[in-house]
Amino acid sequence: MKKMINKPDDVVEEMLQGMVAAHPEYVKRVDGCDVVVRAGGSQGKVALVSGGGSGHEPAHGGYVGKGMLDAAVAGAMFTSPTPDQVYEAIKACDGGKGVLLVIKNYTGDVMNFEMAADMAADEGIEVEKVVVNDDVAVENSTWTTGRRGIAGTIFVHKIAGACAEAGGDLQAVKAVAEKVIANVRTMGMAIAPCTVPAAGKPSFELGENEVEIGMGIHGEPGTHREEIHTVSETTDTLLEKIFAEDLYHEGDEVAVMVNGLGGTPLQELYLANLRVSQVLAEKKINVAKTLVGNFMTSIDMAGYSVTLLKLDDELKKYLAAPADTPAFVQV
Amino acid sequence: MKKMINKPDDVVEEMLQGMVAAHPEYVKRVDGCDVVVRAGGSQGKVALVSGGGSGHEPAHGGYVGKGMLDAAVAGAMFTSPTPDQVYEAIKACDGGKGVLLVIKNYTGDVMNFEMAADMAADEGIEVEKVVVNDDVAVENSTWTTGRRGIAGTIFVHKIAGACAEAGGDLQAVKAVAEKVIANVRTMGMAIAPCTVPAAGKPSFELGENEVEIGMGIHGEPGTHREEIHTVSETTDTLLEKIFAEDLYHEGDEVAVMVNGLGGTPLQELYLANLRVSQVLAEKKINVAKTLVGNFMTSIDMAGYSVTLLKLDDELKKYLAAPADTPAFVQV
Repeated sequence: MKKMINKPDDVVEEMLQGMVAAHPEYVKRVDGCDVVVRAGGSQGKVALVSGGGSGHEPAHGGYVGKGMLDAAVAGAMFTSPTPDQVYEAIKACDGGKGVLLVIKNYTGDVMNFEMAADMAADEGIEVEKVVVNDDVAVENSTWTTGRRGIAGTIFVHKIAGACAEAGGDLQAVKAVAEKVIANVRTMGMAIAPCTVPAAGKPSFELGENEVEIGMGIHGEPGTHREEIHTVSETTDTLLEKIFAEDLYHEGDEVAVMVNGLGGTPLQELYLANLRVSQVLAEKKINVAKTLVGNFMTSIDMAGYSVTLLKLDDELKKYLAAPADTPAFVQV
Repeated sequence: MKKMINKPDDVVEEMLQGMVAAHPEYVKRVDGCDVVVRAGGSQGKVALVSGGGSGHEPAHGGYVGKGMLDAAVAGAMFTSPTPDQVYEAIKACDGGKGVLLVIKNYTGDVMNFEMAADMAADEGIEVEKVVVNDDVAVENSTWTTGRRGIAGTIFVHKIAGACAEAGGDLQAVKAVAEKVIANVRTMGMAIAPCTVPAAGKPSFELGENEVEIGMGIHGEPGTHREEIHTVSETTDTLLEKIFAEDLYHEGDEVAVMVNGLGGTPLQELYLANLRVSQVLAEKKINVAKTLVGNFMTSIDMAGYSVTLLKLDDELKKYLAAPADTPAFVQV
């Protein structure tokens, strides 16, 4: 394993310290916890808490700030945060208007966030939750019953975060988050696996000319392996599965995310986006907004995912609203 | 070679198309050229033109927009743009107040940008240039006489761009760009080489436990190779060479950039930043602003660079000014 780290066991702690050192204007650490909250606090608004295992940076700490999250919980690498940590996050950012938990659909995450919600409710904090399950690749997976939550989660952060920032109450913020979840779908592929520092070896093996279609962001198995194709052919494969959902039709307006998994150069992501834009133009689906970059990574995995979000006027308005966080700024 | 591309020869063209398709609100293509300019034009202000070989995305097209560049020229992969292309960029963004060329110090870039400047001057366009040479690693290199220009260039884009946006005239914009260049220093390292698509094989070879210190962003040789150390030790090595410049002292205020080279996960960049912040604190140097991410990449090279920029009130003001581009947004 060749990595720029100190000790494998210290990566999450030092990463959080390095992040807070970089962005003190945005985030601060909750004492004794692997939790970051807004530097300026979250008084008087519905608070959004997300998180999960580490290794998906900038998710989720990078999205803590105006117009997006209020707190992010960092579990150990690819490991659900404990209920205690999530509970501390809820307490640290509750501004008196209630807290929405944005959970990616992994069994451990759902269970631990729910236990934390119960603990917070016992203390009189109003807590609601949504579970993101945008990955169309497989129905059940290594750590998931149902579909996995992956890059589409960032659209939930953005849009529900904008609703909360605009003064929406807890039920309104939850409702718009659920609307995003109902309308967002993602599918990814990998050309090279990632290496978890403490494991010291790649999470799976791929042949020299082999890629995996539909793998999860922790290297969970996808739909199949195949010989490497061009980026346009591969993007068509991903889009085909997304369009099989029968959710995106001629005349619709969508947001697009082409998400890098950590080890893929931006030039390749733009090639993928070119094909996405061509296919959407052929289908007469209008693109209102496109994001291209590393938004939900898998440490150093090489590969990418494509996300489509079907928009209506409400989602479009909140997607276009300002945001100011370490990893996503919009004027 | 395992890459998500179509044909190696089409990567630059398709990348530009994919980029414009992603960000039509920011950039448009100049017909028939590998040049992007601001979608809304650059009338009534000094225009900034930068560029160079492709492979450093988001540099430079990602920095075209309000508060930064007005045009970016994309050469072939790791190859200087031709004088004709630079000339077209100058013509396309000249808003009547003159044009500043921001050139990274590579012999081909300097020569071709200068020829383009002469061509534009013949047409009555006022053109000035600055040459960025922030890389402290080596004095001369494969394609460079003097020091190479690398990630510190982004601070020139940001600060000179803010001066131009604020109405600075051509001499003022040039002067502040030169002040940045005088005060910015960078040094990088690689743990894995990059692969140029048309070459089909890595640009250099490293042993299983070997890293290269001070290599250039095209894989040019650095100061030495060594066995891999921890990220803290490696960051100390980079900083030592930067501090040998005798430019950064107790009581100074600096901006920091920890720049990923394309294949390095953000978590490792945050670990590097932790060490940078510790060393600066020990030296009683104050950090006014930190950037951590992929700003000036080398396709899929794994590794990072550290940049320090010494600030005064003027540089600090322009660094803090708003910017709105595909790759860098600041409120």
